[in-house]
Amino acid sequence: MTQWHQISGGVTAAQGYKAAGITAGLKSSGKPDLALICSDVGAIAAGVFTKSCVRAACVDFDRQVLESGAIVRAILCNAGQANASTGEEGWQNAVECAQLVQKAIGTTEAVMVTSTGVIGKQLLMDKMRSGIPQVVTALTADGGEAAAGAIMTTDTVPKIYALEADFDGKPVRVGGICKGAGMIHPNMATMLGFITSDAAVAPALWQDMLSQAIDKSFNQVTVDGDTSTNDSVIALANGRSGTPGIMQANSAVAQKLEGMLTEVCINLAKAIAKDGEGATSLIEVRVEGAQSENDARKIAKTIVGSALVKSAIFGNDPNWGRIAAAAGRAGVLFDQNKLHIQLGEFVMMTAGTPQDYDRTAASEYLKQDEVKIRVAIGDGKASGLAWGCDLSYDYVKINAEYTT
Amino acid sequence: MTQWHQISGGVTAAQGYKAAGITAGLKSSGKPDLALICSDVGAIAAGVFTKSCVRAACVDFDRQVLESGAIVRAILCNAGQANASTGEEGWQNAVECAQLVQKAIGTTEAVMVTSTGVIGKQLLMDKMRSGIPQVVTALTADGGEAAAGAIMTTDTVPKIYALEADFDGKPVRVGGICKGAGMIHPNMATMLGFITSDAAVAPALWQDMLSQAIDKSFNQVTVDGDTSTNDSVIALANGRSGTPGIMQANSAVAQKLEGMLTEVCINLAKAIAKDGEGATSLIEVRVEGAQSENDARKIAKTIVGSALVKSAIFGNDPNWGRIAAAAGRAGVLFDQNKLHIQLGEFVMMTAGTPQDYDRTAASEYLKQDEVKIRVAIGDGKASGLAWGCDLSYDYVKINAEYTT
Repeated sequence: MTQWHQISGGVTAAQGYKAAGITAGLKSSGKPDLALICSDVGAIAAGVFTKSCVRAACVDFDRQVLESGAIVRAILCNAGQANASTGEEGWQNAVECAQLVQKAIGTTEAVMVTSTGVIGKQLLMDKMRSGIPQVVTALTADGGEAAAGAIMTTDTVPKIYALEADFDGKPVRVGGICKGAGMIHPNMATMLGFITSDAAVAPALWQDMLSQAIDKSFNQVTVDGDTSTNDSVIALANGRSGTPGIMQANSAVAQKLEGMLTEVCINLAKAIAKDGEGATSLIEVRVEGAQSENDARKIAKTIVGSALVKSAIFGNDPNWGRIAAAAGRAGVLFDQNKLHIQLGEFVMMTAGTPQDYDRTAASEYLKQDEVKIRVAIGDGKASGLAWGCDLSYDYVKINAEYTT
Repeated sequence: MTQWHQISGGVTAAQGYKAAGITAGLKSSGKPDLALICSDVGAIAAGVFTKSCVRAACVDFDRQVLESGAIVRAILCNAGQANASTGEEGWQNAVECAQLVQKAIGTTEAVMVTSTGVIGKQLLMDKMRSGIPQVVTALTADGGEAAAGAIMTTDTVPKIYALEADFDGKPVRVGGICKGAGMIHPNMATMLGFITSDAAVAPALWQDMLSQAIDKSFNQVTVDGDTSTNDSVIALANGRSGTPGIMQANSAVAQKLEGMLTEVCINLAKAIAKDGEGATSLIEVRVEGAQSENDARKIAKTIVGSALVKSAIFGNDPNWGRIAAAAGRAGVLFDQNKLHIQLGEFVMMTAGTPQDYDRTAASEYLKQDEVKIRVAIGDGKASGLAWGCDLSYDYVKINAEYTT
């Protein structure tokens, strides 16, 4: 029944993409800090960006690229400085970086630029001017992993995922990388995701698919509730699969491609939650019985974002009252007399009435790497998922350290 | 210029009120756990309650009392069990508690009931049945402090405040007590506030004044963002000051009484923030230059609620980029090129441009008991305040401990 299967390669899994990650000297740690993803030919691009009105210069720049409908050739990403809260100088730097990539590749097609790192610090432009030609030279068809490594800040592992499916006898691939551990770490900012596909698809449809996929994945992940100034997910599609162009929303092929895109986004998003700053376990919340998927997702995200639920799980305390309380304040009206709450297989409440359960066994369950919470509100047929992580001493430690 | 001055006594500061706090055996710790506030004569009552749709039985009960327009004689408050998520049995218990107080006092006037403690556990009704007659017997005209002590859960200090002002030659008093440290502690729930006044005031006007005061005080405090199932503030006014009835909104006397009520609520609310679970400092955020007070308060509360801002302050890290990021995601549009950010006297950003400042001195400033953040968005003349506390290891410890 599976329509697709996992493959390796991340952003270089799809046909016609190269990538690279190098050390340009933007991070004081000396770790890789400059990544480039480049399509062999111009690609259509879709993007979803932070809703914050305090935005990085590169977010404004990329929005302009998308709004112009330009064909995109490459995405540059640096770690070290976020180029946010940097005023006019920050804008000029974003423009120059894109031009430097165009020049090094030798193209007039658009280049998108993204940044993560300290807010309020200007990009180290001398490092960018020497690093950009180097990262272009380093591009290879198996450079997806190097790119994933060079965009990391407080991440402890690179986050890579790709799928392949058969479309009328030919393979179509969707792959991605992302970064993010806290929404903002001491001086390090942002959730960034980059997705590439060799599908042939209409630009507006590709944007719709990405927006839908993000609502079900990246937007359903919370580590600490802090949206950053730089949050961006950009998806390229270059048509190199050679499959017929997908032009009709709701067609079987469109649904299949959107399914792959969603699956890639969900896997990348879960990787962020699992790698949350200080996290010891991934928490998945499933809400059922809502009137709409939106309602279900809203409740699920509120539960997984509750500091009290998160710290109870860190402490292996099956304190289900906190789950009930978080569900109740999510902003979705429901009848508390129909509320059902489950931790793994342990039913804590059903039809609004507390149930007896094995406390010791439930506490043991919470020691697992992945904890599942199921809530039903008895109001309809829609369901939704959200992911997060527990709140540990280490989260506070990571974020309280005086690093400047 | 001061229109009023502080006095002692909390809920028994106003004329015609008695209070008591006793140990009824509801808390396993053996600490006081049952409080009663009683007016000598029937009082008008106003209330503001949790907006959560997972509500304690007592919240529903008290709402019914207020909606009926009943004259109120007393407020009972127990700590130990929250009577939330307790189904039909919880409702019957709330009704019985109110009746037990009526019987012990010997009145048919209404009694309001409030609870704080474990969610999902039934009230220990045998303890309530023996405790209620005892707490009625213990009522005294200087029992405000005992009542404040008996409503505490994880609070480290009782929270008491009262004001007196001259209204046409006679004293009018407004006093209150409250509890709350985390919105919900391991098994302990809720922010509760009780206010008494001897003012003579029209019921609808009193309710309006309370709602306004709460928007500027309790609703602007956040410890961990978790609204509880039991949050309630109830205010009584019994007219025993003997001053003329205040009937007109916007009259000088109405504004004066509302000013006192707001001041009492702000002082009680700040006491909650200062006593936040694990807190080492009180954070006050002032947002200026907004188009409306609501916008200003919304931004201020988002900043003070940011886990990243909170942990930076715990770590004495003047990481102002996090303040900019939190302001930007508050849901109020503004031009980031007009943003001004100050920590105490240190200007970090002005007109959207980062400023040089003395990092060491700014870090020293953050070691104080009270930290002030000032943000201006250059969009209008309205301002707003919010209060919170830093996020420390101890918050996680308090909330992760397996206490059941």
